[in-house]
Amino acid sequence: MNNDNRRQPDMTTTSDTIAALATGGNGAIACIRVSGAEALNIVAQIFSVNRGKNLDETAAGTMRLGKICDGNNLIDEVFAVRFQSPHSYTGEDMVEITCHASPYIIEKTLSLLIRHGCRLAQAGEFTQRAFLNGKMDLSQAEAVADLIAASSAAEHKVAISQMRGAFGKELQKIRAQLLDFVSMIELELDFAEEDVEFANRNELAALAANIEIYISKLCKSFEVGNVIKKGVPVAIAGETNVGKSTLLNILLNEERAIVSDMHGTTRDAIEDAVNIDGIVFRFIDTAGIRATDDKIENIGIERTYSKIEQAAIVLWIVDASLPVKNAANMFDEMHRRCKNKKLIIVYNKTDKVKTVETLDIIKHPNIQQIFISAKEKINLEQLQNMLIQTAQIPETSFNQTLVTNMRHFEALQNAHSAINRVQTALQQNISHDLLAQDIRECIYHIGLITGEITSNEILGNIFSRFCIGK
Amino acid sequence: MNNDNRRQPDMTTTSDTIAALATGGNGAIACIRVSGAEALNIVAQIFSVNRGKNLDETAAGTMRLGKICDGNNLIDEVFAVRFQSPHSYTGEDMVEITCHASPYIIEKTLSLLIRHGCRLAQAGEFTQRAFLNGKMDLSQAEAVADLIAASSAAEHKVAISQMRGAFGKELQKIRAQLLDFVSMIELELDFAEEDVEFANRNELAALAANIEIYISKLCKSFEVGNVIKKGVPVAIAGETNVGKSTLLNILLNEERAIVSDMHGTTRDAIEDAVNIDGIVFRFIDTAGIRATDDKIENIGIERTYSKIEQAAIVLWIVDASLPVKNAANMFDEMHRRCKNKKLIIVYNKTDKVKTVETLDIIKHPNIQQIFISAKEKINLEQLQNMLIQTAQIPETSFNQTLVTNMRHFEALQNAHSAINRVQTALQQNISHDLLAQDIRECIYHIGLITGEITSNEILGNIFSRFCIGK
Repeated sequence: MNNDNRRQPDMTTTSDTIAALATGGNGAIACIRVSGAEALNIVAQIFSVNRGKNLDETAAGTMRLGKICDGNNLIDEVFAVRFQSPHSYTGEDMVEITCHASPYIIEKTLSLLIRHGCRLAQAGEFTQRAFLNGKMDLSQAEAVADLIAASSAAEHKVAISQMRGAFGKELQKIRAQLLDFVSMIELELDFAEEDVEFANRNELAALAANIEIYISKLCKSFEVGNVIKKGVPVAIAGETNVGKSTLLNILLNEERAIVSDMHGTTRDAIEDAVNIDGIVFRFIDTAGIRATDDKIENIGIERTYSKIEQAAIVLWIVDASLPVKNAANMFDEMHRRCKNKKLIIVYNKTDKVKTVETLDIIKHPNIQQIFISAKEKINLEQLQNMLIQTAQIPETSFNQTLVTNMRHFEALQNAHSAINRVQTALQQNISHDLLAQDIRECIYHIGLITGEITSNEILGNIFSRFCIGK
Repeated sequence: MNNDNRRQPDMTTTSDTIAALATGGNGAIACIRVSGAEALNIVAQIFSVNRGKNLDETAAGTMRLGKICDGNNLIDEVFAVRFQSPHSYTGEDMVEITCHASPYIIEKTLSLLIRHGCRLAQAGEFTQRAFLNGKMDLSQAEAVADLIAASSAAEHKVAISQMRGAFGKELQKIRAQLLDFVSMIELELDFAEEDVEFANRNELAALAANIEIYISKLCKSFEVGNVIKKGVPVAIAGETNVGKSTLLNILLNEERAIVSDMHGTTRDAIEDAVNIDGIVFRFIDTAGIRATDDKIENIGIERTYSKIEQAAIVLWIVDASLPVKNAANMFDEMHRRCKNKKLIIVYNKTDKVKTVETLDIIKHPNIQQIFISAKEKINLEQLQNMLIQTAQIPETSFNQTLVTNMRHFEALQNAHSAINRVQTALQQNISHDLLAQDIRECIYHIGLITGEITSNEILGNIFSRFCIGK
């Protein structure tokens, strides 16, 4: 049971017919989806075609113009189209109604559908039915939500590849191979006294080695995958009054305006993130560091360092119009503390400086430096390019499978431990039943990802994160 | 020219192919509309069906599953459907693409369409093309926007009847009859010296009388029509601390919560309005009135009265737990000032009172009174019923045409003046050319409504109020 009060979809039945708005409600048109055995019958109660054959006599996939009526009251002229089981998104009989996107029409049509026997769909229930009806595995279903949420080219590429099932299919293949082996090993247990070997140990060792390599690669891909999904974390740090916030606002706002112009929506989800040339950067503002013995100020510094700790890239902002000594000392401290971060020293306020060539700069070999003016928008594009290059998400990462989902990552780590134990067991010639148990565990964790193994709790967690209508 | 910087759609050409997102962008799926002569050719550059015939060989109205690609990059698996000119919304060749509602996919698909020759549609441009291509008259086009914005049953009923063209067809008939007459009268002018009469003056007088009655009825309907569109204005007034804001919040919030539960959107447009049994009420909160000689307080009172002036119904809230004398005096003053308002005296805080039967009440015959507790939610439903009855929007108003649009109302008023002048001219036997001029004016104003007479400015004003994608 979940602790929160959200109603969990009932995972065990797909016998009723569900309906929900599938598009955003604030456009010119809206689409209402109906899925289930009674979809056509229920829609027939409220929809009549303008001319010609009724919807149930119309070929699947052909849009029919007609009227939604509540008794004699015309609600809207709409298009309706039916899809026939199993050739639909959910695998069930479905009808999609495209109406005018009026709040009144949408509410009225949904309430008519409910009055005639539909139930309002729960969050993610269409996709959940697609999973339960075998139209997609669980990792594909999860990728649907990722795809819809994708706001960058990189995110999108990962999600669409996962939705198309490359990842799941490979795991299912591995799982099937392991199942073959384990069933043979378990058969050996039945003949324990005869000391037979149905499962070829060399073949199993080779298979385990391959699986170990594959799963290990997937686990490692999570680092890049996670960055692609959540954005590359970039801390903006430096002394007080060096222009950190100005730079942050410019980096964020300019791009945001472009995004919201394009499709007319505001994107609350990405609060401090911005898409630069297809890569999402998540900027982390930090409090200015000041050299001081004051205690409170020191707490501030510790907080800044812990924020920097979350970042993959640190932009160390320096006021180019001031002597560099203080900044250099603090940079040394930061550099010492923050291992494994990619650093860029950004000299800001170059508009206040006569020539950058004569500037006193922080001497640090191998650390990138750039001269900008956030206020006058000088060299910002170069800074963005530097960020993209520093992020180093190689184009080739997209040609391999990337794990972006924490649930998958955890299951893969567990599968990896199990396959390691299988390898050890084979080397040390450990008893059949322990070997079988380790293989079973590996199978179990792989099955969690693709959904061969599942529970109401897992499904509830996954699909309650979807919106209604998905 | 408009004063603002908004780009006006080019009214003169429909030769290019336009594209826009037609649904809200935040659902599970989204629909992108393409309209124009090149719609099929442009979509063919980026869309390929998964199996079977290409989209251009598929019957109109049949959805095809396929892929949107940018070169080798898969953007999404989508449904595409084509509509063939003139059998489409705009009257042009159209393609509708239903994709996953990911910001990235929507942007990418639109930018691919643009790269291959589409132009991003301006606000209202699809409906504008439907008008320019003769698929609907201008009043019908305006009704599309009203229909989409409709949030109450009443609003919806008016909009859908106007969209179906009843109003426009009648006006076009009147206009045609007047055109017949005026052309005959103008013919008489050519034969001025011969003193012939091609146009039967008795018939014209009878026609003018009918038109006057019809237009006058339409003008009168604006009062109800406007209330239906904008809501019945209800002022909540009374002394300070009688619970006006509590009542307002309860009336607003309860209903709002239900609305937003149903279709998962917030409706910013209706800020202080609420739909009670299909009628929208627009509540106007007022500052509490206090009997005082203090000058500033008096300014407050004047402001309250001017707000009451905007209302059709006034809820006069009285604290039932206090002596009624003060409230009664102030109510008299309000009653004296506010003629033509429907009044309801609401005794609030009945939870603080032992029995309402023994209450000292304001003696006013013919004024409705009700006892409630906003805090304890006692009798609120009865208050809502009283509001509905007091609003008196007779069911029969929906069976006649209602004018809800200020632009139509103004044009009808002008047409009415003109037809009155025609009637006078006929009675007084005024010269042919003046008579012809008055008929022409009536024709002109009627034509403005249906769009036979139009200008870039009028169209720009109308369609710029639409959203992009409509």
